[in-house]
Amino acid sequence: MKHSSDHSSNDASGSTRPAPLPRSAYRHFVPLTTRWLDNDAYGHINNVVYYSFFDTAVNGALIEAGALDFLRGDTIGFVVETHCNYFAPLAFPQALEAGLRVAHVGGSSVRYEIGIFASGAPETAARGHFVHVYVDRATGRPVALPEHLVKVLGELE
Amino acid sequence: MKHSSDHSSNDASGSTRPAPLPRSAYRHFVPLTTRWLDNDAYGHINNVVYYSFFDTAVNGALIEAGALDFLRGDTIGFVVETHCNYFAPLAFPQALEAGLRVAHVGGSSVRYEIGIFASGAPETAARGHFVHVYVDRATGRPVALPEHLVKVLGELE
Amino acid sequence: MKHSSDHSSNDASGSTRPAPLPRSAYRHFVPLTTRWLDNDAYGHINNVVYYSFFDTAVNGALIEAGALDFLRGDTIGFVVETHCNYFAPLAFPQALEAGLRVAHVGGSSVRYEIGIFASGAPETAARGHFVHVYVDRATGRPVALPEHLVKVLGELE
Amino acid sequence: MKHSSDHSSNDASGSTRPAPLPRSAYRHFVPLTTRWLDNDAYGHINNVVYYSFFDTAVNGALIEAGALDFLRGDTIGFVVETHCNYFAPLAFPQALEAGLRVAHVGGSSVRYEIGIFASGAPETAARGHFVHVYVDRATGRPVALPEHLVKVLGELE
Repeated sequence: MKHSSDHSSNDASGSTRPAPLPRSAYRHFVPLTTRWLDNDAYGHINNVVYYSFFDTAVNGALIEAGALDFLRGDTIGFVVETHCNYFAPLAFPQALEAGLRVAHVGGSSVRYEIGIFASGAPETAARGHFVHVYVDRATGRPVALPEHLVKVLGELE
Repeated sequence: MKHSSDHSSNDASGSTRPAPLPRSAYRHFVPLTTRWLDNDAYGHINNVVYYSFFDTAVNGALIEAGALDFLRGDTIGFVVETHCNYFAPLAFPQALEAGLRVAHVGGSSVRYEIGIFASGAPETAARGHFVHVYVDRATGRPVALPEHLVKVLGELE
Repeated sequence: MKHSSDHSSNDASGSTRPAPLPRSAYRHFVPLTTRWLDNDAYGHINNVVYYSFFDTAVNGALIEAGALDFLRGDTIGFVVETHCNYFAPLAFPQALEAGLRVAHVGGSSVRYEIGIFASGAPETAARGHFVHVYVDRATGRPVALPEHLVKVLGELE
Repeated sequence: MKHSSDHSSNDASGSTRPAPLPRSAYRHFVPLTTRWLDNDAYGHINNVVYYSFFDTAVNGALIEAGALDFLRGDTIGFVVETHCNYFAPLAFPQALEAGLRVAHVGGSSVRYEIGIFASGAPETAARGHFVHVYVDRATGRPVALPEHLVKVLGELE
């Protein structure tokens, strides 16, 4: 698939479609091993599994940075929107990497961009986004992003 | 994605966000049982699992209508784009339903809209879309949609 | 595991192998819908997924009977042993049923036998067991089974 | 949990229970990354997921050794029995390892023993077995193990 400088392409109907991105589009990389069950009946990693990679990249980066305590924290991130474009098939037993970048930090929300790469590949095999809204664990109502989280997110922008 | 005024909302930044849709937005409904492992560490069905519901609703409807033979068919649908907005949490052991509608049929692609409902609920707890491009199984190159598939899709529009 | 003569078979090496069981071997049945991703690269429901059915049947029955509050309960069941024998392949989009029976209630443990049936089939396509040890949620140490649980388990024996 | 030299322990009822094994019990190790969704509502890796690790260790070792072509091979391994004992909880984002050993090679079947370790840990957090019967892909009937496979299995005993 060819991609123009703005990383989109026109299809027959005139609408734009996302195109692969290079490694430089991401700030943090997470290694991922694949599993036999990731391959569906067509022998490729199923579209659903990419979202597990997204989820893992985001939460893993936050836990590693000390910005998420999913067992005891008073505020937790609820997912309100996810999206993925798939450019090229991947398959178990390939090793993969997720690239992660914080694209937007709002009052109580964060938008992450994530790219999935065959390990060491120059361009994403798939890419998408993932939006968290932070809520109070007890009430489920949106809250301001915790200060420490905002600092961690700043390092991923 | 364009949204009509009554199915979107403005957030603080002025951009529009999708809103829940009623049952009448979908043409075909598929019952779904949930599983213990669908609930993640927060006790709700994880965002990833909704895409398994999408996948299941689309492929299940096609198989039921005799429009998909995933073991022997010469052409298969590859997923090129998926998207989901989440409005309200769901949790095992709730029973669910997926609503399905064909939104666009192109030369070699199909766009499905899917809504996830708590069983019998009037509005989607989550909704999104799913785009298939049909390819030749051996070469992986896009092909025209099979005639029988186009007929089946017409009944879901 | 001891097997009675009519539910086992001898293989070439002289050891006994479990054999399918009839519906009468179970006390409680749980309907299960299958998912596209349950099918692995061979086009059958993957061996892993059966354990998700086991987990779902056990926890679902307990929640339904008011014997498990997984969000707030002081005691929770930790899984210490699981086992499955597979007799015949199943595949999405088949509808399934899990049959459940309590086989042993100990001081702090419960052993469940579970059978997976194609919906309405007379014999298990797979069957196995699942052992819970009840622990204090805070300390992780074994505790006596809660009284209400013991009563519910008695109805499943 | 204490374990005797035969790697089993007696419980109150007099039956023996498997106990953890050291790294020396396995011949081949496979690194595994965990995923957010592996953690269930109790915040630990769910019992089901261990079988995905088993499946991945076995099939990954065979593919790496050139002994499994899951897309085009004439003979494939069907799983007929799996078993797991769980000794200590694990949780995302821990890195893990699967240890693998071939325990028995029959005419058309193979029994693998698998141990799951926290990365670098001296003893299994869980361990079990996994039995493959090789069948003709087209007929589903058992066949003799392919010669190259037998050679690969010999190196894992």
